[in-house]
Amino acid sequence: MQELYIKVPGVAETSYRIAIGSGLLPSVWSAAEAAFPKHKKFIVTDENVVAAGHLSKLLHGRDASTYVIHPAGEQSKNIDTVVAIVEAMERAYLGRDTLVMALGGGTVGDIAGFAAAIFKRGVPVVQIPTTTLAQADSAIGGKTGVDSSISKNAFGAFWHPAAVFIDVATLQTQDERQYRAGLVESVKHGLIASEEYFEFIESHLDAILERDVNTLEVVARYNCSIKGRVVEEDPLEKNKRRILNYGHTVGHAVEAASDYALLHGEAIAIGIVAAGLIEVERGLSEPGRLDRIRTALEKLGVPVKLPPNLAEDKITDVMKHDKKAVDQWPRFVLIGRLGQVHCENGQYAVPVGRDVVEKVLELMIDNG
Amino acid sequence: MQELYIKVPGVAETSYRIAIGSGLLPSVWSAAEAAFPKHKKFIVTDENVVAAGHLSKLLHGRDASTYVIHPAGEQSKNIDTVVAIVEAMERAYLGRDTLVMALGGGTVGDIAGFAAAIFKRGVPVVQIPTTTLAQADSAIGGKTGVDSSISKNAFGAFWHPAAVFIDVATLQTQDERQYRAGLVESVKHGLIASEEYFEFIESHLDAILERDVNTLEVVARYNCSIKGRVVEEDPLEKNKRRILNYGHTVGHAVEAASDYALLHGEAIAIGIVAAGLIEVERGLSEPGRLDRIRTALEKLGVPVKLPPNLAEDKITDVMKHDKKAVDQWPRFVLIGRLGQVHCENGQYAVPVGRDVVEKVLELMIDNG
Repeated sequence: MQELYIKVPGVAETSYRIAIGSGLLPSVWSAAEAAFPKHKKFIVTDENVVAAGHLSKLLHGRDASTYVIHPAGEQSKNIDTVVAIVEAMERAYLGRDTLVMALGGGTVGDIAGFAAAIFKRGVPVVQIPTTTLAQADSAIGGKTGVDSSISKNAFGAFWHPAAVFIDVATLQTQDERQYRAGLVESVKHGLIASEEYFEFIESHLDAILERDVNTLEVVARYNCSIKGRVVEEDPLEKNKRRILNYGHTVGHAVEAASDYALLHGEAIAIGIVAAGLIEVERGLSEPGRLDRIRTALEKLGVPVKLPPNLAEDKITDVMKHDKKAVDQWPRFVLIGRLGQVHCENGQYAVPVGRDVVEKVLELMIDNG
Repeated sequence: MQELYIKVPGVAETSYRIAIGSGLLPSVWSAAEAAFPKHKKFIVTDENVVAAGHLSKLLHGRDASTYVIHPAGEQSKNIDTVVAIVEAMERAYLGRDTLVMALGGGTVGDIAGFAAAIFKRGVPVVQIPTTTLAQADSAIGGKTGVDSSISKNAFGAFWHPAAVFIDVATLQTQDERQYRAGLVESVKHGLIASEEYFEFIESHLDAILERDVNTLEVVARYNCSIKGRVVEEDPLEKNKRRILNYGHTVGHAVEAASDYALLHGEAIAIGIVAAGLIEVERGLSEPGRLDRIRTALEKLGVPVKLPPNLAEDKITDVMKHDKKAVDQWPRFVLIGRLGQVHCENGQYAVPVGRDVVEKVLELMIDNG
């Protein structure tokens, strides 16, 4: 037998810019053009974003190849949509010199980012998030993917954006329920990384719900720097990045078990309360902490109890398919105190028995 | 407006092992087990490989989750097959701790490698190529992907294997036409990188066609070291790696225009002759070189002329969709002398006018 070794060369550190402002959408195209003068632009957006007028603000009279996802929302987050986008790019004779511009919410960003990651083995993507969820979370960090019929993000890739443009003015037109649900990720950022930020949210909830742009710029800044710091430390989610999954283990399962009747943020709110109850079980919670969290979530108007029609065994079955599952059972991110994740033996995702999870789910059923 | 920068950390250099031998298939599982003790193995193969007995040699009495691609061949190299594989992994409750083992030809390796690249944002893949094409070319270098209805590898990712095991004994059962077509990539390696290797092939064609395992081990060694050297220098095909596309610009288009009636290697043989004729047009060819190349290809029994039923405009239309196309027209890799690629202004893929390509295609039509 002979042996050879093939070196896979290292990749140098890079960085990307996040611009945050109010009313910056009309200047995004020029900024992208300046950064990628040789690339042909291809926009991916959805029908809601078009109806809200964001696409015409971005285009500012220009003409550009555009794919409009229809219908908007989680139900289009599947491989068929990705295939349709790739084939639209091919029909437009686009090659590797393409810059994908993802204009929209988390679903648009995930789909467009994944399409960019796999189109002709990868082209750059610029994220232009227009929802509370996408601005707080999904536009930053390079996670892309679409769901299968069995689980969320079964298909995906790590594909960092080439740049991110956050215009908080785009939030003015967001549907109220979606707007509120998306803020749950901001609450999560406070819980896992910054007591100061959690307190800012608690004390500015009215201004946030009134969509005051100055307050929203502060929120965006907190979100980007917290999430940015975490993904810089652990871009491929080997360990530390898992703290961003706080509330997501139960949350994802609840979201899937509800057949996506619950919005992502709504399901994560339930997941955050579930994590809080596990922390109480574990003796990790200082007195009154869970009540404070629950109060903030209730002010946002998101659910903090399990809808009675959700079968628990369906939730636990989905959990077995969790991406982070080891031996068919996921690990959990828990917080030790406000603003700090609990860490066991250097691990931020820790084992929690099925019995504990089942007990907590039982406690959370909404009996009206 | 506020600005933040997010660092994307660099990735350290790694390397992977290629083991080459005759009869090593039954020991591959243990070797993979030793290298990935914590990973659950998932095999992707196809019906031809199973029929040839390779799967049972690999399993050696073991039981393992396996996806068998049906039908074997290029027609299964599409996104539907990838979706079916990912869903099969999900149904087997596999998570990120999965090692995909790709056992088969180039199609199996491309499909399984791409499925591994996008399953839950990426799991490792071991390539176990069983054909002349895969052993010479596709198993090494990390290119994975599947075709769309419009072009080849429209969907894809760079996903380096975790290890490669080449058992030249598996070639004994390969279909004669496939066997010969796959050797064209070996000829290509000689042409672009090593006159010595081209001469070895010329002088050992009988032993190669008789499938002498000792000769095939030498061939495998040459192929791996030539391809390995190129991909080490330019893993993401920014420039130098393009030399591996010698013969592929016309070749891919001919392959697609034939609706895959021509095998990949057969189409590449036509593409190599087309490149040779362009070189003659350009004054890049020393006298007799093209004849020598044509003679070697003819001994392999692969086509060196365009089948008369292939419309030229169909070929040139497919070329506009080439992944490497700039302004809807691809660039060409040409050789300056045997074993050395022609380089213009530091570029290995150079512009060639449509008129020249059309003239050459005209010359190549087989009028019987």
